[in-house]
Amino acid sequence: VSTTPHSSAIILSSGDEIITGQLLDTNTQWLAERLVALGIMPREHISIPDDLTALVSTLRRACDSAPLVIITGGLGPTDGDLTRQALAQLLSEPLITDEASAAAIRSMLEKRARPITDRQLRQAQRPTTATSLPNQVGTAPGLHAQVPPTRHSALGTQHSAHSEIFALPGPPGELRPMFEREVLPRLRPPADRILVARLLYVIGLAEADCVDRLGDLTRRDRNPLIGITASGGILTIRIRYEGPGPREAALDAVDRAEGRIRDALGAHLLAIRDADSGLSALARCTIDSLAARKPARTLAVVESCTGGMLGEMITAIPGSSSVFRGGFITYANALKEELGVDPAALQKHGAVSTEVATQMALRGLARAQADHCLAITGIAGPDGGTPEKPVGTVHIALATAHTNPARPTVIAKRFLFTGDRHDIRQRAATSALTMLHFHHHAPPATQPRLLWETTNLHPHK
Amino acid sequence: VSTTPHSSAIILSSGDEIITGQLLDTNTQWLAERLVALGIMPREHISIPDDLTALVSTLRRACDSAPLVIITGGLGPTDGDLTRQALAQLLSEPLITDEASAAAIRSMLEKRARPITDRQLRQAQRPTTATSLPNQVGTAPGLHAQVPPTRHSALGTQHSAHSEIFALPGPPGELRPMFEREVLPRLRPPADRILVARLLYVIGLAEADCVDRLGDLTRRDRNPLIGITASGGILTIRIRYEGPGPREAALDAVDRAEGRIRDALGAHLLAIRDADSGLSALARCTIDSLAARKPARTLAVVESCTGGMLGEMITAIPGSSSVFRGGFITYANALKEELGVDPAALQKHGAVSTEVATQMALRGLARAQADHCLAITGIAGPDGGTPEKPVGTVHIALATAHTNPARPTVIAKRFLFTGDRHDIRQRAATSALTMLHFHHHAPPATQPRLLWETTNLHPHK
Repeated sequence: VSTTPHSSAIILSSGDEIITGQLLDTNTQWLAERLVALGIMPREHISIPDDLTALVSTLRRACDSAPLVIITGGLGPTDGDLTRQALAQLLSEPLITDEASAAAIRSMLEKRARPITDRQLRQAQRPTTATSLPNQVGTAPGLHAQVPPTRHSALGTQHSAHSEIFALPGPPGELRPMFEREVLPRLRPPADRILVARLLYVIGLAEADCVDRLGDLTRRDRNPLIGITASGGILTIRIRYEGPGPREAALDAVDRAEGRIRDALGAHLLAIRDADSGLSALARCTIDSLAARKPARTLAVVESCTGGMLGEMITAIPGSSSVFRGGFITYANALKEELGVDPAALQKHGAVSTEVATQMALRGLARAQADHCLAITGIAGPDGGTPEKPVGTVHIALATAHTNPARPTVIAKRFLFTGDRHDIRQRAATSALTMLHFHHHAPPATQPRLLWETTNLHPHK
Repeated sequence: VSTTPHSSAIILSSGDEIITGQLLDTNTQWLAERLVALGIMPREHISIPDDLTALVSTLRRACDSAPLVIITGGLGPTDGDLTRQALAQLLSEPLITDEASAAAIRSMLEKRARPITDRQLRQAQRPTTATSLPNQVGTAPGLHAQVPPTRHSALGTQHSAHSEIFALPGPPGELRPMFEREVLPRLRPPADRILVARLLYVIGLAEADCVDRLGDLTRRDRNPLIGITASGGILTIRIRYEGPGPREAALDAVDRAEGRIRDALGAHLLAIRDADSGLSALARCTIDSLAARKPARTLAVVESCTGGMLGEMITAIPGSSSVFRGGFITYANALKEELGVDPAALQKHGAVSTEVATQMALRGLARAQADHCLAITGIAGPDGGTPEKPVGTVHIALATAHTNPARPTVIAKRFLFTGDRHDIRQRAATSALTMLHFHHHAPPATQPRLLWETTNLHPHK
């Protein structure tokens, strides 16, 4: 039995539905994140079809290049489930029935009043030297096998010890608990190498400008290594330390890198880190920032082209009810009038205008009795654009009541976003939250440049 | 220049954020789906880190095994963007500046009032024999290169002609239009093998029950092959024909399979097929079905626990303005009262109750002057559950005015959804649209079973 540490891993997913794009593979991302958190670096992710030859050769190649291989899918009862056969072929062993697994399958089917068929019991098979991994949720057990190194690999093996393969079922609801119960205790993260990863989120800056501000922090030869990705108007900064321990020193190096990034980016850097996404980090920061005021400030929204997306983003965060009151989806003009927007303003300036955005925000503020109200009106496309107001034109207004309830203030901005309908709507919702963020966290005064794709600025008189 | 058909493809995605699981790669799925639709079968998907050696060797291996290679990511301005260098190394060519791309980058930055830096202009570089692919949305152009076959491949080349590589930017909003404009016209699907794929969507049925109804249609040895996946309360049925032509015969086989599925599933099968997702198919069906009535029916929403998600789902569909009026996000109870919900009902039954859902729907109907109004109130968790109303309890009401405007009717249902906050909210929004669907398309009377996870049914008196 191998005792070499799992210094790196390859994650495989099998399935025609994945290879043809009919199903989005989320297992691989989940497994990668879990492995990195443990200090095991994934080297490659590979997806292959339900094809025995491809399965065997890919498993062989994966074992030749990493001491740990995790494969998902192909363990079910259908004829397209070939992972068991592939493992048997790789190990040159026959498939035998694992009696404990067969008993578990029988018992599960009985409980669900389903017929016990040969097809179902086929899932209990395993190569002779492999171990079955119990499935608490579904019928298909996982498999764990030790694979000896190839003697004469065409590629030249990158390590000479045994490799370990874990085969896990495809449904995420079965895979995740099986990973935690059966795989995790068998993993051997390298003790001499520490891996620490952290995510930070940046708003109101273009990717290239962010890189310029970070200077040599983003050099590829640094440890921690710092990477940047842009998505939906938010930048994600990845800090990754990989090297010798102790863990405290690694954490310290990551903390120092974060400190330097914070100094360079100021209020552009969100306080929340390691969120599910940049969007959820921004939404959580908004809520935390409103909740932290004494007394807590409340927020309402009025949405036209985003149709509820801003409200959805805010309420996706547990605990948003402490500050979020709700709002109005004024998609049709009649609903803008119902809210209290002046029909003459709609007539004169059009629904996509600073004036209407401003009135939407002010009326929403009053109707929801909130401290802040964000209003969005724009042209998300693909149709509806004109030369004066092309697709992507979005007006966002932020009304604030807290300084003097009788005389709320409004900031309104015009944006021109590129991309498709989804991109434009997402950028609009993100920019609305960004406006609110910079209302509370002024960026350093030394910053000369525009913060957003603002093409115009209309402070409300 | 190669003229061999693109009989198969390998899709690569590069990026530390993908390999470490910090970002879910959706580009590969999208590309796979597009290629399959054209008759080009993906052979493998591979993700690799931002590492020049890994990029070059993986590109080499991909070119050795398929005539078409598409790689996403690594074209941006940061030092971690290495696809340009990898291609240059693979081709043994220097990188030169593509003047047209440099001009396009300058013009885009000027339009956005952003500084024109060397870092930004670096994105205009290409290997000498490669072609730059214009980016209409962002700064990074794509690349197109012809790669000659290896003379002495360790693996043995599986084909001896040139391979073609397309390198596309990582942001989906840039990748997708570039694929359509620049890659699609350069693809050469094989003329002698036909691949036809189709997606159908099913609501109101459990996966196992759907399989039972489809009978031997789901056997693995059939062509077309039929697969089923469940996600967010909607089933996706994949039909895939692969075989010799002519194309008409293949389409005919797929049409026949769809006809048999339609007979088996009746109104559970949505009319829209091949949508971006089951959710968007359901939203589009809802809109189409309302728009098709004479006169067209209008829809409004009142959302509590979903916070705007239902409105967002509906307005994600272009043209939704023909039927969707908008609605109310009544997250706080004060906003439910502002809408017109009786404070006494809130006090007596609680916000999550049939009574409040019913009043929300009726008040939304009146305020929005719509023909239908869907109202959702529930406990999305993770907190807020009680023994009587556990997390996952959701009440949905559908108010309809069109039969007699003075006396609207209401159907209200109680659901108990499992999963996390996101799952519960998504199931709630999906179930609301499903209720409206079956309001217009009654399922066959012979169906004895419950349609949803309805644990109770409260028709409004």
